[in-house]
Amino acid sequence: MGKLIEDLILPYLGGFQTDVGLELLDDAAVVDGVVFKSDSHAVRPIFFPGGDIGRLAVSGTVNDLAALGAEPTALGCGFVLEEGLLMKDLEQVLASMKVTCQEAAVFVVTGDTKVVEKGSLGGLVMNVSGIGRRTSSLDHNLAVVRKHRSSFSARWVLDSNLQVGDKVILSGTIGDHGLAVLSAQEGLAFGSKIVSDVKPLNHMVKKVLEVGGVVSMKDPTRGGLANTLNEWSEKANVGVFVHEEKIPMREDVRAASEMLGVDPLEVGNEGKMVLGVVKEMADEVLEALRGTAEGGEAEIIGEATDAFDLVAMKTVVGGNRILAMPVGDPVPRIC
Amino acid sequence: MGKLIEDLILPYLGGFQTDVGLELLDDAAVVDGVVFKSDSHAVRPIFFPGGDIGRLAVSGTVNDLAALGAEPTALGCGFVLEEGLLMKDLEQVLASMKVTCQEAAVFVVTGDTKVVEKGSLGGLVMNVSGIGRRTSSLDHNLAVVRKHRSSFSARWVLDSNLQVGDKVILSGTIGDHGLAVLSAQEGLAFGSKIVSDVKPLNHMVKKVLEVGGVVSMKDPTRGGLANTLNEWSEKANVGVFVHEEKIPMREDVRAASEMLGVDPLEVGNEGKMVLGVVKEMADEVLEALRGTAEGGEAEIIGEATDAFDLVAMKTVVGGNRILAMPVGDPVPRIC
Repeated sequence: MGKLIEDLILPYLGGFQTDVGLELLDDAAVVDGVVFKSDSHAVRPIFFPGGDIGRLAVSGTVNDLAALGAEPTALGCGFVLEEGLLMKDLEQVLASMKVTCQEAAVFVVTGDTKVVEKGSLGGLVMNVSGIGRRTSSLDHNLAVVRKHRSSFSARWVLDSNLQVGDKVILSGTIGDHGLAVLSAQEGLAFGSKIVSDVKPLNHMVKKVLEVGGVVSMKDPTRGGLANTLNEWSEKANVGVFVHEEKIPMREDVRAASEMLGVDPLEVGNEGKMVLGVVKEMADEVLEALRGTAEGGEAEIIGEATDAFDLVAMKTVVGGNRILAMPVGDPVPRIC
Repeated sequence: MGKLIEDLILPYLGGFQTDVGLELLDDAAVVDGVVFKSDSHAVRPIFFPGGDIGRLAVSGTVNDLAALGAEPTALGCGFVLEEGLLMKDLEQVLASMKVTCQEAAVFVVTGDTKVVEKGSLGGLVMNVSGIGRRTSSLDHNLAVVRKHRSSFSARWVLDSNLQVGDKVILSGTIGDHGLAVLSAQEGLAFGSKIVSDVKPLNHMVKKVLEVGGVVSMKDPTRGGLANTLNEWSEKANVGVFVHEEKIPMREDVRAASEMLGVDPLEVGNEGKMVLGVVKEMADEVLEALRGTAEGGEAEIIGEATDAFDLVAMKTVVGGNRILAMPVGDPVPRIC
């Protein structure tokens, strides 16, 4: 997918000079001060433990806007429905979108629906786009960063802002969404039910920005934590070192991952945020995160370093290993 | 589709109080002064005479933003690709999007790609969302309207603005897109090639706004001219009377429609605009339209009236007939 984007999509569609453009491949773009994001969803099955495609699509776009430091102001929604989709299933997806929009305090203001013949969609695929705006919380956050890093001039929270010495914080347990969808796809039942973490994180992000000191944020969706950290390392040109024992993970997720042979660090999450924070503010940001409903299990999992230029992890069994950029999706149609 | 939107989508997703919201079901929404639109496309085949799904998706969103009187500033793009899609086909779609973006002077700044198993999509479906802004051309246009209609206070070009006495202008021939796609679907070859009219209309709209006096605009896509006029009649609570002999239509489109049994007034167009114009400015707007490449065949086709409260047409054979709201799509997967 990365190759497809770099070899085909960017050469044809890139090139626009703006504050935050397509080439940055960040969580969202900024044009004329408006933060803008488009995200399509083809998760299968459309209902999975802990969520559904509607909740996923709303949360995904809200979280991408929030990851830039923006406040989401409105969403657009495009459905492609398969003939034969039960109206009660569509209604359940819409009801779930409504609840998720209420949680995030954002509304759908524009949309469109198309119908295709019955095929491989599993009911429907959908796109949620969103716009967001700059807030005083973001301005405060950036001012706190500048207090500790005089050379800092970024106007948004970007992947490329990470610098040597910054702490890396993970807002909670990893792997829940990927294993929940995979178990639904495979028809597996585990001893304890693994449920997706899918949720909007904009309120949590606002709390953190009001503390300040956050330079980078990313919701570790496709490719999981391993993908997020590798993107940061590449874009910011720094090494990232994380400590396996610090990475929050549910025991049943760990067990299911081993059984199914997938790496929980490489599967997508839909209710977590990875934050790069200036080291002087890391403890305060951690405390603020832990004070929120969404970030109660947050941990400082590592830091940016100049000791090497890739992502490495100190394992619980001892020794370090490279955490490489994931190749392909371990779970197809996870989001 | 109208029933689906009113019975299911609006009750769940509507309710946001904003300048132009979901309930208006206008061409785009306005939030915080930002014009915002989302549109999905599932046309089949993805390549058809005169265009392809990429050109269609870019033009569709650009035209919807323009129909509100806005200038498009950026696009977002979400692809859902089917396994087995040839890379050369995807590349051709991207190249077409690039050309169309250049024509419209707008860029894609955010996007996303998902892959699904081979099924019924015919290669790919896609969503293009877009944002736009208010311009001095729009302000000028509205000032001209106010000169002729003192009670006018709308800040955007809306379906509901149409009033008794306003002229209805159509920017060119009707039915081309629908018949081109239908002939591609059916594998038909007509004596002369019917090609889609798909194109971005934002430059044409700008020229017209610089003349001024336009109260309503709509690109007659799904449901065609009949749908557009009925929406205007319902939303603005006026009758609309049009003259069949004034409606521009290619002879081969007329012949193909008769042969295939579809009403050319009910099939979608992708490169035309219907305009409601205060009567004092109708001739000037018509002249401006005819001076553009996109609107060379424009005609004044009718007017808003209080003689009745529906859409009626004076036919070429004599007598009037009701032009009803189309029921269902005469051409499936036309856009």
